[in-house]
Amino acid sequence: MLYPTPIAKLIDSFSKLPGIGIKTATRLAFYTIGMSDDDVNDFAKNLLSAKRELTYCAICGNLTDDDPCAICQDTSRDRTTILIVEDSRDVSAMENIQEYHGLYHVLHGLISPMNGIGPDDINLKSLIERLMDSEVTEVIVATNATADGEATSMYISRVLKPAGIKVTRLARGLAVGSDIEYADEVTLLRAIENRTEL
Amino acid sequence: MLYPTPIAKLIDSFSKLPGIGIKTATRLAFYTIGMSDDDVNDFAKNLLSAKRELTYCAICGNLTDDDPCAICQDTSRDRTTILIVEDSRDVSAMENIQEYHGLYHVLHGLISPMNGIGPDDINLKSLIERLMDSEVTEVIVATNATADGEATSMYISRVLKPAGIKVTRLARGLAVGSDIEYADEVTLLRAIENRTEL
Repeated sequence: MLYPTPIAKLIDSFSKLPGIGIKTATRLAFYTIGMSDDDVNDFAKNLLSAKRELTYCAICGNLTDDDPCAICQDTSRDRTTILIVEDSRDVSAMENIQEYHGLYHVLHGLISPMNGIGPDDINLKSLIERLMDSEVTEVIVATNATADGEATSMYISRVLKPAGIKVTRLARGLAVGSDIEYADEVTLLRAIENRTEL
Repeated sequence: MLYPTPIAKLIDSFSKLPGIGIKTATRLAFYTIGMSDDDVNDFAKNLLSAKRELTYCAICGNLTDDDPCAICQDTSRDRTTILIVEDSRDVSAMENIQEYHGLYHVLHGLISPMNGIGPDDINLKSLIERLMDSEVTEVIVATNATADGEATSMYISRVLKPAGIKVTRLARGLAVGSDIEYADEVTLLRAIENRTEL
């Protein structure tokens, strides 16, 4: 397509985003031109400041604009429990339910033998260091319920159990609101295995 | 969700784009943070320069970084024909087939009685002015094949025909590569009405 250079460049920038092809990028670029000056200036400023100001917490690896992050600094939180997640979005999902009050550890990935990602390629070493001489008694593995998530969870459990730390993981079963009819077989299997008394 | 301020603001900016909800905006914002510094800087720069440098051609209304636009300035183009489109993206689609060598006129909208948009609300007045004392002999109406597109095309034809200007519109029929089985009734009707000799 023949577009004036400024819009062609903007389309190019949009199309670098995941899941955005050339047609969507074009639609977004044209929409942006129709936006108010303030909105576009804010957008550009927010892009730069998110990239510039955000860093990873030196303790837990969570994305933060303040190192150590607010959660690690919060003395009111339970320091005997660490919940392990794949990325910062999982921390937010967990914080959102306002039920967990311990600390976190963000792995920035999962062990994936198929893709050649081993324990040293994710933020695991710092977890081991963090657990040495700490007051942590339980580690909750909250990785996704996928093959890589399971592999990571198995690895962590094998490494930490000999050190006398209780390792748990999130329950597997039917998602709330879901139909048995449409549940996959493995989920149903786990749901029967892990049945609870009423 | 509880995100650090810089990323919350970036998510907010992304979610102002059309078709992008809060979940996609979050995914895009996190992806952006993982992009290279250069890519993010370019993105921000492209946003600002697209907004700042682009303007509408005073003659045809096309989006351009140079007024009048390259097409209006191009003396090699056929100045007896004007093709009328809804927006600048349609100009690019048309230029892409490299078959039309006349001029354009961009309406920036369509007449839409249902939404209270009349002839004065779109870039039509400048077309009439443009046609006065011009060498234009044919106006091709290339609005979308929708109700509003048809309304606009009818209006233009009624206004221009008395002035002795030939008004044509793009052919209606089966899209190339489409199945008769799945074509809607109106399209099939037009395809039969406008059948051509082999």
